[in-house]
Amino acid sequence: MADGTPVSASRAVDEERLWNRLMELARCGALPGGGVNRQALTEPEVQARLLLARWAEELGLPVLVDEIGNFFVRRHGTDPSAAPVMTGSHIDTVPAGGRFDGSYGVLAGFEVLQALEASATSTRRPVEVAVWTNEEGARFAPGQMGSAAFVGARRLADILAMSDRDGVTVAQALEPILAATPRAARRPLGTPVAAFVEAHIEQGPALEAAGCTIGVVTGIQGRRSFLVDVQGEAAHGGTAPQSARRDALLAATAMIHDLERAMRDPQDRVRFTVGAFDVEPNAPLVVPARVRFTVDVRHPENAVMERLGDQVGDICLRHARGCVVSVTENARAPSISFSEEVVNTVESAASRLGLRHMRIFSLAGHDSRELFKVCPTGMIFVPCKAGVSHNEAESATAADLAAGARVLAEVVVELANR
Amino acid sequence: MADGTPVSASRAVDEERLWNRLMELARCGALPGGGVNRQALTEPEVQARLLLARWAEELGLPVLVDEIGNFFVRRHGTDPSAAPVMTGSHIDTVPAGGRFDGSYGVLAGFEVLQALEASATSTRRPVEVAVWTNEEGARFAPGQMGSAAFVGARRLADILAMSDRDGVTVAQALEPILAATPRAARRPLGTPVAAFVEAHIEQGPALEAAGCTIGVVTGIQGRRSFLVDVQGEAAHGGTAPQSARRDALLAATAMIHDLERAMRDPQDRVRFTVGAFDVEPNAPLVVPARVRFTVDVRHPENAVMERLGDQVGDICLRHARGCVVSVTENARAPSISFSEEVVNTVESAASRLGLRHMRIFSLAGHDSRELFKVCPTGMIFVPCKAGVSHNEAESATAADLAAGARVLAEVVVELANR
Repeated sequence: MADGTPVSASRAVDEERLWNRLMELARCGALPGGGVNRQALTEPEVQARLLLARWAEELGLPVLVDEIGNFFVRRHGTDPSAAPVMTGSHIDTVPAGGRFDGSYGVLAGFEVLQALEASATSTRRPVEVAVWTNEEGARFAPGQMGSAAFVGARRLADILAMSDRDGVTVAQALEPILAATPRAARRPLGTPVAAFVEAHIEQGPALEAAGCTIGVVTGIQGRRSFLVDVQGEAAHGGTAPQSARRDALLAATAMIHDLERAMRDPQDRVRFTVGAFDVEPNAPLVVPARVRFTVDVRHPENAVMERLGDQVGDICLRHARGCVVSVTENARAPSISFSEEVVNTVESAASRLGLRHMRIFSLAGHDSRELFKVCPTGMIFVPCKAGVSHNEAESATAADLAAGARVLAEVVVELANR
Repeated sequence: MADGTPVSASRAVDEERLWNRLMELARCGALPGGGVNRQALTEPEVQARLLLARWAEELGLPVLVDEIGNFFVRRHGTDPSAAPVMTGSHIDTVPAGGRFDGSYGVLAGFEVLQALEASATSTRRPVEVAVWTNEEGARFAPGQMGSAAFVGARRLADILAMSDRDGVTVAQALEPILAATPRAARRPLGTPVAAFVEAHIEQGPALEAAGCTIGVVTGIQGRRSFLVDVQGEAAHGGTAPQSARRDALLAATAMIHDLERAMRDPQDRVRFTVGAFDVEPNAPLVVPARVRFTVDVRHPENAVMERLGDQVGDICLRHARGCVVSVTENARAPSISFSEEVVNTVESAASRLGLRHMRIFSLAGHDSRELFKVCPTGMIFVPCKAGVSHNEAESATAADLAAGARVLAEVVVELANR
């Protein structure tokens, strides 16, 4: 597997250039604490797209966009009829996220394109860097929205009609995003893809603990996500008798308390998160009339995840306390295993480059989960400090990030010549 | 007590005019569901103040404002050195409130002023209608802000420096409010008051159940209010092991679950409300880094309220789960009993007018709680439908509202001639 010598493109990867681009992109939506708030389809994302478009122009490479705002930079291959090999990730962040989640995969892709140019490497297939719209799902849930629309897993019309907390629809929020790249050619959703490889920080502590630079990702943990809507009745907090209240918040509290108990796992493999919780009218002296909260459940074994997810609705309805309760499952993805072909290609590349590597299963979701549905797909992980992610303190070293980009260059060249 | 005949001012109260003013005021911040969102120091309040200033001008009466935005309409008495008798209430609402809470007390006061004019009634003391700033405390908590500043119970500088969820200070939000009445004379906080009488809907079901039109309010239930701040750590909802999380939301949930148990009362006299609950970053896939929630506890017996309130801090700290927890008591008011002098005056007036009445204890807080600290104070309740308040469906009849205004006219004239 470690046979051969690295291709010239991987040797042309420039650690400092990659790092500088990451720091420049991190200015779009920068937070005082060192992190980034660049939620999907917001003004900071417009700024980030202008920057990416400028970098593509400097490389002399064309930009394409599709109807959901997925953004592609394309480098032509020698076979004009061949489907492209794609790499990339996303540039949106959670509300107080880090500088590397998503952005690294996009800019590692840019670095590979520049390395291909610098080393005058030609490939049979085109190579494209994809920037998938709204991977995080912070403003418009669920995430992996652009990649799901691209592969046909979700209907475009349904997505465009969704609205955020302020009633702004995806269609409305997309307008300034698409206007940011007026010269980009429009491409239809569902363009054929030969293979997809995504570089990403691990977002967990395993690589760091094992002293490995490269994670050869074998698959992605499944998840089930729910939106629970509890509709009670507003009342005066000083006068309404407790027995007559239909308090949406106390009902939601009882639900979450019981859900947490049901999700308890001595092996600590279950992931249970109530990340968003919105109260109406949210005033100190008014009994809450409505609460909407999200539930995210994960487990590497599909059977366990199914069993846990199946309990969510029952537990919530059991604590309705006179409120009208609806539980909607808005994302359900089984755990997946990437094709051995791509996994082996990543592993061989890491070996050829002499990088310490290990096979690893991704506990976080990624756009690769969607691309997996239409083409051979794989991922390359690099370590992040203490496994911290979705946090302003997210950190990674320039050397590790460059190493991951070198593996990506090897893999992309190999797949693009198949 | 039922001796004598009603004064001419009470006969000049006009049911239709009072109702029409209530409906016109309700347009400022009107919601599609028939309610009102006119939170303190917002644009709808500016509109409402313009309307009140216009009505005062039509009556030929001067408007005064103080530094916290309390708004007064003054009708002179025959003794220029006498302190005024005040009536009034507030015009701010909770985020989805009704048309009567607060507004009724203000417009019943306007109706009394107009009835005094129409009946050419002179009084020894001036009569003033006060509009107290931010009674509800929805945007800037706690409420009864203007009345507390007026009586010196809270320091003006502390209040002006407070900020809302968006970081806007009270001082900043007051600017457009004060600018709405440029011709109003400025009055210092703490002007002496001879007596204060506030008309209000009951916000509870007792009057309706007893078939009474007038509630002779004997006092106000105490309350203790807390702000609980839970600071955990943001993490990736898919990867961070449950055992390593410092999940502010699950900690808050455990706190509220346990608080609810501690507040359980078979007699159903305890009032326990968690009305506001704010999550950061509030994204589905991020472990919540911070939760701030309010706790409001009431009981008519001060000893019980003290005992219950004393448990809040301990219970919250017990469920910290690795988070940094602070519990701040931001309002603490004992139950109060109004002076018999004012209570008897209200009762006699209701009798003279032949209105069915009963003594009643207010479970809700009011600006009267603050005025009570500086002068003889009382309240007049009228029924509201099914006791519903702090809700768009809040409702009261024109006849009951006018009856309350007639009692108010009787009481004001009597107190203003003492």
